[in-house]
Amino acid sequence: MRQRVVKPAAGIMLAQHCQYHKPARLDSFKKLSNVDIEHFKSIVPAETVLATAAVGGTADAIELEGFNADWLNKYRGNSQLVLKPKTTKEVSEILKYCNEQRIAVVPQGGNTGLVGGSVPVHDEVVLSLRNMNRVRSYDEVSGVLVCDAGCVLEELDNYVAERGHIMPLDLGAKGSCHIGGNVATNAGGIRFLRYGSLHGSVLGLEVVLPDGTILDNLSTLRKDNTGYDLKQLFIGSEGTLGVITGVSVLTPRRPSAVNVAVLGVPSYENVQQAFKRARQRCGEILSAYEFWDSNCMRAVLHHQSLKSPLEAEYPFYVLVETSGSEKNHDDEKLTALLEELLEEGIVEDGALAQDDTQISRMWMMREGIPESLGKTGPTYKYDVSIPIPVLYDVVKDIAQRLEKVDLYKPGQSSGPVKLVCGYGHIGDSNLHLNVVAEKFEDRVTDVFEPYVYEWVASHRGSISAEHGVGLMKRDYLGYSKSPEMISYMKRIKDVFDPHHILNPYKVV
Amino acid sequence: MRQRVVKPAAGIMLAQHCQYHKPARLDSFKKLSNVDIEHFKSIVPAETVLATAAVGGTADAIELEGFNADWLNKYRGNSQLVLKPKTTKEVSEILKYCNEQRIAVVPQGGNTGLVGGSVPVHDEVVLSLRNMNRVRSYDEVSGVLVCDAGCVLEELDNYVAERGHIMPLDLGAKGSCHIGGNVATNAGGIRFLRYGSLHGSVLGLEVVLPDGTILDNLSTLRKDNTGYDLKQLFIGSEGTLGVITGVSVLTPRRPSAVNVAVLGVPSYENVQQAFKRARQRCGEILSAYEFWDSNCMRAVLHHQSLKSPLEAEYPFYVLVETSGSEKNHDDEKLTALLEELLEEGIVEDGALAQDDTQISRMWMMREGIPESLGKTGPTYKYDVSIPIPVLYDVVKDIAQRLEKVDLYKPGQSSGPVKLVCGYGHIGDSNLHLNVVAEKFEDRVTDVFEPYVYEWVASHRGSISAEHGVGLMKRDYLGYSKSPEMISYMKRIKDVFDPHHILNPYKVV
Repeated sequence: MRQRVVKPAAGIMLAQHCQYHKPARLDSFKKLSNVDIEHFKSIVPAETVLATAAVGGTADAIELEGFNADWLNKYRGNSQLVLKPKTTKEVSEILKYCNEQRIAVVPQGGNTGLVGGSVPVHDEVVLSLRNMNRVRSYDEVSGVLVCDAGCVLEELDNYVAERGHIMPLDLGAKGSCHIGGNVATNAGGIRFLRYGSLHGSVLGLEVVLPDGTILDNLSTLRKDNTGYDLKQLFIGSEGTLGVITGVSVLTPRRPSAVNVAVLGVPSYENVQQAFKRARQRCGEILSAYEFWDSNCMRAVLHHQSLKSPLEAEYPFYVLVETSGSEKNHDDEKLTALLEELLEEGIVEDGALAQDDTQISRMWMMREGIPESLGKTGPTYKYDVSIPIPVLYDVVKDIAQRLEKVDLYKPGQSSGPVKLVCGYGHIGDSNLHLNVVAEKFEDRVTDVFEPYVYEWVASHRGSISAEHGVGLMKRDYLGYSKSPEMISYMKRIKDVFDPHHILNPYKVV
Repeated sequence: MRQRVVKPAAGIMLAQHCQYHKPARLDSFKKLSNVDIEHFKSIVPAETVLATAAVGGTADAIELEGFNADWLNKYRGNSQLVLKPKTTKEVSEILKYCNEQRIAVVPQGGNTGLVGGSVPVHDEVVLSLRNMNRVRSYDEVSGVLVCDAGCVLEELDNYVAERGHIMPLDLGAKGSCHIGGNVATNAGGIRFLRYGSLHGSVLGLEVVLPDGTILDNLSTLRKDNTGYDLKQLFIGSEGTLGVITGVSVLTPRRPSAVNVAVLGVPSYENVQQAFKRARQRCGEILSAYEFWDSNCMRAVLHHQSLKSPLEAEYPFYVLVETSGSEKNHDDEKLTALLEELLEEGIVEDGALAQDDTQISRMWMMREGIPESLGKTGPTYKYDVSIPIPVLYDVVKDIAQRLEKVDLYKPGQSSGPVKLVCGYGHIGDSNLHLNVVAEKFEDRVTDVFEPYVYEWVASHRGSISAEHGVGLMKRDYLGYSKSPEMISYMKRIKDVFDPHHILNPYKVV
């Protein structure tokens, strides 16, 4: 499998003034010296050690830039050392040394996260998994894939596609994100509705603990009830408990027929109604039900050079995808759904993709939203889970709050706030609320933070549906988890990482 | 929801001489006195306390029989006290006291387990959840059910069926087993192929820890990435980490069309081939693919007064079930599959159920196997996961080993061993290997124990696919888990249950 360098999408606007709370560096962590660099060179090949002059190496700081900053350039650390081991044993030896020496480490996959979880906060060593990118085994009968953590998601999807299968997850960052990072952050994405959570589809993990212990739990079995399911703890732990080096995942059979339609919908109420009908009519073949509002649509049509498949403009848009094993049957089901929705006035217009090009253009309309908003201006991003009936209320509420204090005028693209908009995976109660501003500034932030978290907590929602906690939401964890839950999370952290060297300042 | 008393199936043969390793009672556990009983009466209603004269109560030992012995009557404890709290707060107060006083506790659901996990080993207090059996909430849009742990699975399935949904799991013991026990043992069963693991479909849990802490993680969200997913640890922990009192579970929409066929198959090789075709042809509507051998079939036809839907006898039988949203489409897919399998000689005969009565008779043929074997004689039961291609080899191998030492003559129903047979969920690589004997005796056991575990380990299988570890397999855990894994399981146990009062002598 080819190695792939992570690059931010071309032309994306970089926020020059990062604005986030940066906790102070912990004095308990050792500062690196060239003695440490020499030790690392004795355990991994020299070409996989990237060290600046500050710690006795020869690399330019610019070479470490892509490891120090996240892809939105919002979070930025100051690491002087990147290690790119090629084997699990090397990872084990690196961690063992760091643990003994109290050197802080940030594990890094494709570095496509949105909550500052995958970049250093200060001078932590970056442990990049990108050189661990081999498929270890694939069983075509069971569909079980075993691979290194550094494999790129899209490349894995291509690999299993050639064998008639599909990865159980898909997300916008697929071209850069690593499967190890997907698992470490419990990534959701657009196939979640159909194939469910990684807690169900990950069958096994190989994890290296801070003391160098290799936890070999790389099972390929769908069922295994022999003791506590420890691998579940690492799914979604964001690299704070151990470093995932290998993944065993169940890949479903790839559906032979895929249909996509885009609908124009007059109200959020109707978006919900159409969802209920889609589940009734399409049942087991419904594979995606995504929605976005007119503000998202305008941004994406402008920045992606796309043309809407619908003639008029609507308050809401929905993308319905079906995936099945028999094209005729699926066509019949989807056509019946569209006819019903149009006849009853639940949707006002609909377009059915006629070929693969149209399918990918329709998907681009949904998947191009984050990048298009990024091109519009620095973007505050909230990824929340709220009961479906009130899901869109939070977008309206935040917009009104900003209007009230004269920071936002809907329909005008200038002003301190340019755009308040919402999109997401409605089938999973998952909303992406975005506020696009001129720049990140306190008078804007203060209007909706922590208000948005309070809003979500008051509806028993989650302040992070799929993006995770990272650095961004660590201080807000209490809005979604009780003090008792957080206390036990900390005890679990102590069990696996007693010196707290792994991904410090984050999650708990 | 009606309370239901657990009863062993009528007429089942009881093994008079239980044969299993019973570890010595730990002296560190307090012996109950009437002071304790009085205390319990002060925290729970008196009618929910069942205590024998030995500890100052008035109950007959016989009243505690159903709590002390498992349903196969293989495992038997000697508890003198059963508590049946009605609220989470009562559970919390009971555990807090037991923890302070070092009183050992065995949490008990429907007591339908097969590995001795739900009955006391010695004089542990039985904490029965049967009085906690209310549905707490149900959301018809999302299909999320929140209920007490003591609700009976079948009653929940009826409840959600009335609302157009289906429980994501189903198993033979559905009429007695509790949802809390299902979660605590990570039950698999016959809907696993379609709806996956409870690690994916359980959204939240309410758990009481030994110190009385109530961990409120009863989320109803499909997506929630806020910190470590602690609930996953309790799924499959068999009551050794905490007592599950509430469950939030995602129920899929109930398929409106269900079809079932039974196939006569000439070889195990063909059972596998037919499975591949079924996945191709039926794809997303395939909801079960179960197989059993001719020995199982003879036992079930004899004991369940059933008639085979096929005219001749075959080495193997397969039950295929499809569940979809559009009957015509499903009929077409299943008929095409059957025609293809018959034409190509992959199967030799097939019968398609014509109505619901025939569907349930066909299912009875598969689900009636455990009971029919139990009626044939005391049964050694192994529940293993092995890669599909070699899955049935272990049945042949064990039969041959028994033949070689003259303990078994295939086709003869007398002798120390009457029957060696296999059945199971082939789609999940899950085999139930059963050896039916005259009686449990060492010369029989020694032939295949620990040989069967070694066999499974040598194929990187699991010695417990879905039944769990309990008391039965605690000593054999090392065949499926590494010393490092087991060491970390023990540390997790120490975090949640530092005095090891919960379900002692079991799992780790």
